Amino acid sequence: MAEKSSSIVPAPFSKDLCPKMPREDGEAVRNNSYSGVSASTVTVKMEDSKEPDDPAHPKLPGWFSEYSPLWPGQAHFIEVEKILFQGKSKYQNMMVFQSLAYGKVSVLDGAIQLTEKDEFAYQEMITHLPLCSIPNPKKVLLIGGGDGGILREISRHSSVEQIDICEIDPMVIDVYKEFFPDIAVGYEDPRVILHIGDGIAFLKAVPGGPAHNLFETPFFELVANALRPGGVMCIQAESLWFHSLMVQDLVASLRRTFKGSVNYAWSIVPTYQSGVIGFMLCSTAGPPVNFKHPINLIDSNDSYGAARGPLKFYNSEVHSAAFCLPTFTKRGIDSIAE
Amino acid sequence: MAEKSSSIVPAPFSKDLCPKMPREDGEAVRNNSYSGVSASTVTVKMEDSKEPDDPAHPKLPGWFSEYSPLWPGQAHFIEVEKILFQGKSKYQNMMVFQSLAYGKVSVLDGAIQLTEKDEFAYQEMITHLPLCSIPNPKKVLLIGGGDGGILREISRHSSVEQIDICEIDPMVIDVYKEFFPDIAVGYEDPRVILHIGDGIAFLKAVPGGPAHNLFETPFFELVANALRPGGVMCIQAESLWFHSLMVQDLVASLRRTFKGSVNYAWSIVPTYQSGVIGFMLCSTAGPPVNFKHPINLIDSNDSYGAARGPLKFYNSEVHSAAFCLPTFTKRGIDSIAE
Repeated sequence: MAEKSSSIVPAPFSKDLCPKMPREDGEAVRNNSYSGVSASTVTVKMEDSKEPDDPAHPKLPGWFSEYSPLWPGQAHFIEVEKILFQGKSKYQNMMVFQSLAYGKVSVLDGAIQLTEKDEFAYQEMITHLPLCSIPNPKKVLLIGGGDGGILREISRHSSVEQIDICEIDPMVIDVYKEFFPDIAVGYEDPRVILHIGDGIAFLKAVPGGPAHNLFETPFFELVANALRPGGVMCIQAESLWFHSLMVQDLVASLRRTFKGSVNYAWSIVPTYQSGVIGFMLCSTAGPPVNFKHPINLIDSNDSYGAARGPLKFYNSEVHSAAFCLPTFTKRGIDSIAE
Repeated sequence: MAEKSSSIVPAPFSKDLCPKMPREDGEAVRNNSYSGVSASTVTVKMEDSKEPDDPAHPKLPGWFSEYSPLWPGQAHFIEVEKILFQGKSKYQNMMVFQSLAYGKVSVLDGAIQLTEKDEFAYQEMITHLPLCSIPNPKKVLLIGGGDGGILREISRHSSVEQIDICEIDPMVIDVYKEFFPDIAVGYEDPRVILHIGDGIAFLKAVPGGPAHNLFETPFFELVANALRPGGVMCIQAESLWFHSLMVQDLVASLRRTFKGSVNYAWSIVPTYQSGVIGFMLCSTAGPPVNFKHPINLIDSNDSYGAARGPLKFYNSEVHSAAFCLPTFTKRGIDSIAE
């Protein structure tokens, strides 16, 4: 765990909260060090920090509604056919329900995490955008991503020798294994090492890290320290339809820490607000990484690893297209000094 | 009007109904013949054909909710700050309301047509995908698109000499001119000729058209007949997240009629169901058209025509990226014999 990784593929931050991670205060959800790091931020909230329901959040009996104060005045409603699970850990509330529109849906603290219908779009892109951008990824760290879907996707890469995952909440893992076996199948890969605990603590165990101990910036510094030269990180970032200033702030912050490439990419997931999800891809100083042109192709891989079938969303064309930005987004990001 | 057009850019079909146009029975909304045809299907419904409200459609006081029986079990809710217009023509009901989330929103028969926040994404892509794919478009026909936004975008093309628009419902034009002046500004281009009437009748006036008179297929035959060799048509198609079989049927149908290129492209519009909208681009036999690689660049155009500012969404990179399809969509379309 103390070795330098060759790439880092961070898994999804809670999708509507990623860049600022406001609900993660005092919380885990961090990275580790490998040849790739995928940082998936689990939505974590302390028991005593529950906010009262937002009175602006519209609700209807028999329907689940997702509402984000980040883009107020709208909500996505999904009809609930049957509630399959409701539970609470020391970190969060979790619910799983069956829906006509999206199959099974998982929810953490009121925020949709994934659905059976569209999970592959997210899991494939957050995994293969970074791992197909470097030759022969060997060690990958996943922070969060307890559902196992990113593990399933990493598993398609035969060059990978070790996959560490830090998930703080064992309830999450158990529930996905019970209700989403085709996603949690990622845990069946023998290269996976599961660490139940705080990803930040995990990252801090990597020697040579920064001495200071701040909240936000240090996460990225810890990741950068944990990566080998030319190693890569991918984290979930906000939709380009959201306040683009937050994307710009994130890009500026990452450019201070990562001395290689820093790029914003986007993809589509209909159950995420606005139907779009963003990603930040970063590499450390070392062998240059051109995220826009994948060099480690897996399109026609016929070794699926723990995954039980071929890719559904990702291919090399979609990879490059994910970095083509609408003019208004491009202008916002280009306005930041390189 | 009887001359052959060099390209055809069809404007938006009612977004959730495009390929089958079920609500357009006995209705107008068709194409014409020019160097480009943009066919925008207006949602038109006869007074006596109003369906009773779908009981599955969830509703809340103070909120507008859009619900489609094409993808049941979900709905997008937008909070209404103020209703600005409600009216009824012989064709349809129209509403305009102010919202916090999207600014002004226009609705025809319960279906969102456009919002101030995201209209540019749709208008720019449906216009420039076809018109930037051919050299020097001269005559363009728009069917529907009474809001004027596609006219505004066509107006950026200095090679265009004539822009015909067929809009059946004058109420639509009047309302957009009053409440959406930055969109209806397209009518100010002196090249625009407005035809209040049925686009099908307009297309039928083009000589040399097919003799038979069926409902669905003939529309495309009339368009193909109206186009010059190597002329292009663009119509709105369904989101790739919808039943992909319908896209496949549409592709198969278009390939029977258009002897040049037939391609599916997609873009993002957060107020459209699933956040994604599709387009079909077709060309007639003649000079080959490669839709994936724009040759008539307008990215750095500094002549905006009737538009009052630069492009916000479209650029040449986004143009090519729009044709990069997720693997599951690609498989569905590739399964159709070329």
